[in-house]
Amino acid sequence: MTRTGFLGPRGTWSDEALTANTGVAEADMVPLPSVPDVIMAVSSGEIEAGIVPMENALEGSVTATLDYLAFEVDNVVITREIDHPIHHKLIARTPMKLEEIERVVSMPIASAQCRKFISVRLPHAETVAAGSTAEAVRIVSESDCKCAAIGSQLAADIYGCVVLEEDIEDRSDNETRFVLLSAAPAPQDLDRPYKTSIVCTIAHDQPGSLLQILQEFAHRYVNLTKIESRPSKKGLGDYVFFIDVEGKKDDAAVAAALKCLECKLARVKMLGSYPVG
Amino acid sequence: MTRTGFLGPRGTWSDEALTANTGVAEADMVPLPSVPDVIMAVSSGEIEAGIVPMENALEGSVTATLDYLAFEVDNVVITREIDHPIHHKLIARTPMKLEEIERVVSMPIASAQCRKFISVRLPHAETVAAGSTAEAVRIVSESDCKCAAIGSQLAADIYGCVVLEEDIEDRSDNETRFVLLSAAPAPQDLDRPYKTSIVCTIAHDQPGSLLQILQEFAHRYVNLTKIESRPSKKGLGDYVFFIDVEGKKDDAAVAAALKCLECKLARVKMLGSYPVG
Repeated sequence: MTRTGFLGPRGTWSDEALTANTGVAEADMVPLPSVPDVIMAVSSGEIEAGIVPMENALEGSVTATLDYLAFEVDNVVITREIDHPIHHKLIARTPMKLEEIERVVSMPIASAQCRKFISVRLPHAETVAAGSTAEAVRIVSESDCKCAAIGSQLAADIYGCVVLEEDIEDRSDNETRFVLLSAAPAPQDLDRPYKTSIVCTIAHDQPGSLLQILQEFAHRYVNLTKIESRPSKKGLGDYVFFIDVEGKKDDAAVAAALKCLECKLARVKMLGSYPVG
Repeated sequence: MTRTGFLGPRGTWSDEALTANTGVAEADMVPLPSVPDVIMAVSSGEIEAGIVPMENALEGSVTATLDYLAFEVDNVVITREIDHPIHHKLIARTPMKLEEIERVVSMPIASAQCRKFISVRLPHAETVAAGSTAEAVRIVSESDCKCAAIGSQLAADIYGCVVLEEDIEDRSDNETRFVLLSAAPAPQDLDRPYKTSIVCTIAHDQPGSLLQILQEFAHRYVNLTKIESRPSKKGLGDYVFFIDVEGKKDDAAVAAALKCLECKLARVKMLGSYPVG
């Protein structure tokens, strides 16, 4: 039994990505109220695994996921990545015209992915935040105001709502990268491409450090697939870098580069070495 | 007369940063409903200048600002940067205990800066999004529900509210970098440190490109003060890079590096060369 936490309630994109891509049994699915709650529950051992959104193709990184993995837990690693297409629907309790809608209930990152649709088609609607897309649909299903939610077809089905408009995201190739988390590292023996994710903390006022990091990988022919700076939370201009490279952490070139980085940098944190999505 | 747009209504952090750091006359201040609206109004010539938040020390970049500057306008440049301290207050219409609060109205980026305070002190309060911190305070000032807003002292004063709790941000050194925008470039003749901001678009599947960009600056001894990847909105794993370097765009070393980048990269967009904040 692997109890697997996800951003609840049922019908979120995390739920959809989990059920569509893994064989987890319904009885083992544990809905939790927020992304940080999923990460903290894996860390505490309350659940064995969790799925969290990491990055959306339109909106970029999910900052709560990055910050909790980098700064709040030390025993949680990524064991797999799942790229899942995201096609938002505009959902209401009963059929209505777009002009009638007074309020759009949505998770902020979902409304950001539909920024153009909202500004052009719903310019006068008030935007109200919900903790997840499914929560937004649930709220709309229970309210008799002129309101609509942004969420998945699954959520519309679960909460007995109707879809007013299909695929309202700003670009049709919208997708989100989810990661599975566990307290135990992923097996390194699968015969498929792996990726290794780290967080590098650079000592303040060392402007050449990023170049040095990249060179450690480049001169060993290790490809970077992602680099992203985030505030270290120690003041403006002070960053940590989230870096994904191709390969397993034990591959000779990756291992050598990581060893050199550990000598040079204030901190190198391993987020996981796992099969590519 | 320089009509200057800012995220309204009166009492936002943009308002506070603008009035505290510039000599703009009250009659020239133009409140607008969103950050993209400020950028688009400068672009259309409706206003001569604007102030927008660029990056917060805790939450990182304001994605709407970056995306609109990078992708939506071609004639808007940064003319100055302003680093302004951000000390959020928990604000209500009348005095009440924290346990009584059922709803927190806030701009999502402001609630994210107060994530720990909200989860520890207001664990059962529902979070409701508003378009700005001042809008949140205005809503709370007009409602008789058990609700509180996150915003500035200025907003509490303007809307006749009381401060329930001071300085609820997760770190006391919280600050936001604002930038002034104009359709005309900043004069390059001030005798003080300058910064130059660019956006680099890398052709897909050129994993060594970022290293090459950094090298162009490094071997000319030009320091980077920021690098940040954002989705190019063309699919997962496809990025543009926002880069800030020390110096004026016409400094010999900076100009030479930019010229080489323009030869190598799909696109190099100048966001501005302006006095440091």
